[in-house]
Amino acid sequence: SKRYSITLLPGDGIGPEVISVAKNVLKLAGSLEGIEFNFQEMPMGGSALDLVGVPLPDETLLAAKKSDAVLLGAIGGYKWDKNEKHLKPETGLLQLREGLEVFANLRPATVLPQLVDASTLKKEVAEGVDVMVVRELTGGIYFGKPRGFGTNEDGEEIGFNTEVYATYEAVDHDIWVDRIARVAFETARKRHGKLCSVDKANVLEASMFWRKRVIAIAAEYPDVELSHMYVDNAAMQLVRNPKQFDTIVTNNIFGDILSDEASMITGSIGMLPSASLGSSGPGLFEPIHGSAPDIANQDKANPLATVLSAAMLLKYGLGEENAAKRIENAVLDTLNKGFRTGDIYSAGNKLVGCKEMGEEVLKSV
Amino acid sequence: SKRYSITLLPGDGIGPEVISVAKNVLKLAGSLEGIEFNFQEMPMGGSALDLVGVPLPDETLLAAKKSDAVLLGAIGGYKWDKNEKHLKPETGLLQLREGLEVFANLRPATVLPQLVDASTLKKEVAEGVDVMVVRELTGGIYFGKPRGFGTNEDGEEIGFNTEVYATYEAVDHDIWVDRIARVAFETARKRHGKLCSVDKANVLEASMFWRKRVIAIAAEYPDVELSHMYVDNAAMQLVRNPKQFDTIVTNNIFGDILSDEASMITGSIGMLPSASLGSSGPGLFEPIHGSAPDIANQDKANPLATVLSAAMLLKYGLGEENAAKRIENAVLDTLNKGFRTGDIYSAGNKLVGCKEMGEEVLKSV
Ligand SMILES: CC(C)[C@H](C(=O)O)[C@@H](O)C(=O)O
Ligand SMILES: CC(C)[C@H](C(=O)O)[C@@H](O)C(=O)O
Repeated sequence: SKRYSITLLPGDGIGPEVISVAKNVLKLAGSLEGIEFNFQEMPMGGSALDLVGVPLPDETLLAAKKSDAVLLGAIGGYKWDKNEKHLKPETGLLQLREGLEVFANLRPATVLPQLVDASTLKKEVAEGVDVMVVRELTGGIYFGKPRGFGTNEDGEEIGFNTEVYATYEAVDHDIWVDRIARVAFETARKRHGKLCSVDKANVLEASMFWRKRVIAIAAEYPDVELSHMYVDNAAMQLVRNPKQFDTIVTNNIFGDILSDEASMITGSIGMLPSASLGSSGPGLFEPIHGSAPDIANQDKANPLATVLSAAMLLKYGLGEENAAKRIENAVLDTLNKGFRTGDIYSAGNKLVGCKEMGEEVLKSV
Repeated sequence: SKRYSITLLPGDGIGPEVISVAKNVLKLAGSLEGIEFNFQEMPMGGSALDLVGVPLPDETLLAAKKSDAVLLGAIGGYKWDKNEKHLKPETGLLQLREGLEVFANLRPATVLPQLVDASTLKKEVAEGVDVMVVRELTGGIYFGKPRGFGTNEDGEEIGFNTEVYATYEAVDHDIWVDRIARVAFETARKRHGKLCSVDKANVLEASMFWRKRVIAIAAEYPDVELSHMYVDNAAMQLVRNPKQFDTIVTNNIFGDILSDEASMITGSIGMLPSASLGSSGPGLFEPIHGSAPDIANQDKANPLATVLSAAMLLKYGLGEENAAKRIENAVLDTLNKGFRTGDIYSAGNKLVGCKEMGEEVLKSV
């Protein structure tokens, strides 16, 4: 039987609750496919701050690096919102992405037929939406240097950041269009063969450079239909007609914005998983929702985004497609049976808590 | 009688058609309020490129600066899309904003009861939406230096830009949170007293600085309720529940994205005007839609966004509230009578072209 080591990072808020459900689902789906897991839980985010004073302890990063895949719950909360930058839970997440070198963030936004009413968009606009946003995750303005605070030539205080992209992986983390483009073309190829690259090439040099490299890499993928769109137009088109998109590739900050917009189009962000992949080494898998401190420890969280992140972990992280399919199907079965947590509840269905939702999924794995 | 000089910049595509309608409406509304206009038409955008080889001729900027207000149609088109940066129509627009120092871009996104069905959002989500986005327009990553192309320490080609904000107007165009914050607080005060400042202060120093200055300026406006939101969340909340917003203030690039998203939420971007204001000197008024080369010269364009931009010109640019109200009411009357251009047409209404729509508005001024 196969054996994988998984680092679990429950994090803050509802994180521990949803991770506990996903762990059980992973265990069962694995055992039915002859896979065994070693789970190791490590502190991260606000809870790591409280425990050891940093948002990403060295031991956590080390354990994550040594494992085959990392599953994260959620991080953050009011308690740490006013912390200085290096003591913010979010900084721990950025350090984790950087440390694992997971430069490609895959964020599907799919409207399930069972949940089409959850969208604020009209049914005919929302139904059938199935977009994959491929976001560059370890470069651009998030990591570009120089950055910081200072004074300008007039002696005025300033705050500044640098958006920078280069062709390929250089020593620093401010780079690399080519490799994210390749991941995006590969992803589009496995989907419906359409890739839309989003930039602001009518204004920004970093975007002109991005577009030039995406076009260069396109030569390797003649079977994928490439288009380009400005980011402001993309933000509109996602509202106007999200079905026009198959796969979107974009930089770190535009991807942050557009992937969240796309996920809200589905109306059920409690359902949406994500995968962050590097060239080698373990991938990082996490639900796209936050730590929801308001409902933490009340057994109200929707664990399905984390369960589906576990499915992505199996598929993209370990290449275990069968076990992944088991989990995806179990989630659909559970929805078909009418089980709903509060965030996706609608009349006529059965309202359940986080734990019960987990138990129902287990029955269908 | 009062006299104002107006620079008209018809621009490209449908620009000349919509400007011609708006000019007639301005003339009539003015004459009924004892106002006379001197109109001067100047080349700009792609048509200026074709005519004199630059997107913003010196004479155009000079005329604009000397006038009391500037009304722009639209610029751009496929023909110039592949031009080098300094020969793009868009560059002319950025130079115009910079030249006029119009740092505050006011972009209302209002769902009119007559057009609520045009939104892709469910009726109950769309109806009553009335958001004003105040976008910083002459700073941030659009103008920040250093910028350009080069090589990094590994000899790799790169493209880069700088996002930078300072407290107040310095010598260069990479600056100023305080003054845009003041415009936003003033705007919110005249609306429903709620201001949401959007940033990415959990990651970017430029945003942390932005937030710090917005909070400092808030002390001058104790009657305005200030909140803060991260840009990714704002992109979601605009889809989830746009009615939660009154006035939004944000930087140049986030404002570009969010104001377009907000305008698409209304479903009728052919209706939406904008105003760009400086500390003194003429304001720049333009519809938010593009030049729509596909329907240019076919009498199909919706002139109402430009007509409403003329109303903003009267109100914000010249302080002529009565004449502005005349135009706004005339547009509502015309919609109430059922006149619709193709972009906002729905069954049961009267489909008209650009010119006829203009004539109908004139009847109600
Ligand atoms: C928490 C924050 C730093 C993070 C980001 O901006 O990348 C989050 O918004 C996300 O999208 O995962
Ligand atoms: C045309 C382009 C340069 C411009 C911008 O990005 O500011 C446009 O998108 C706008 O919002 O007015």
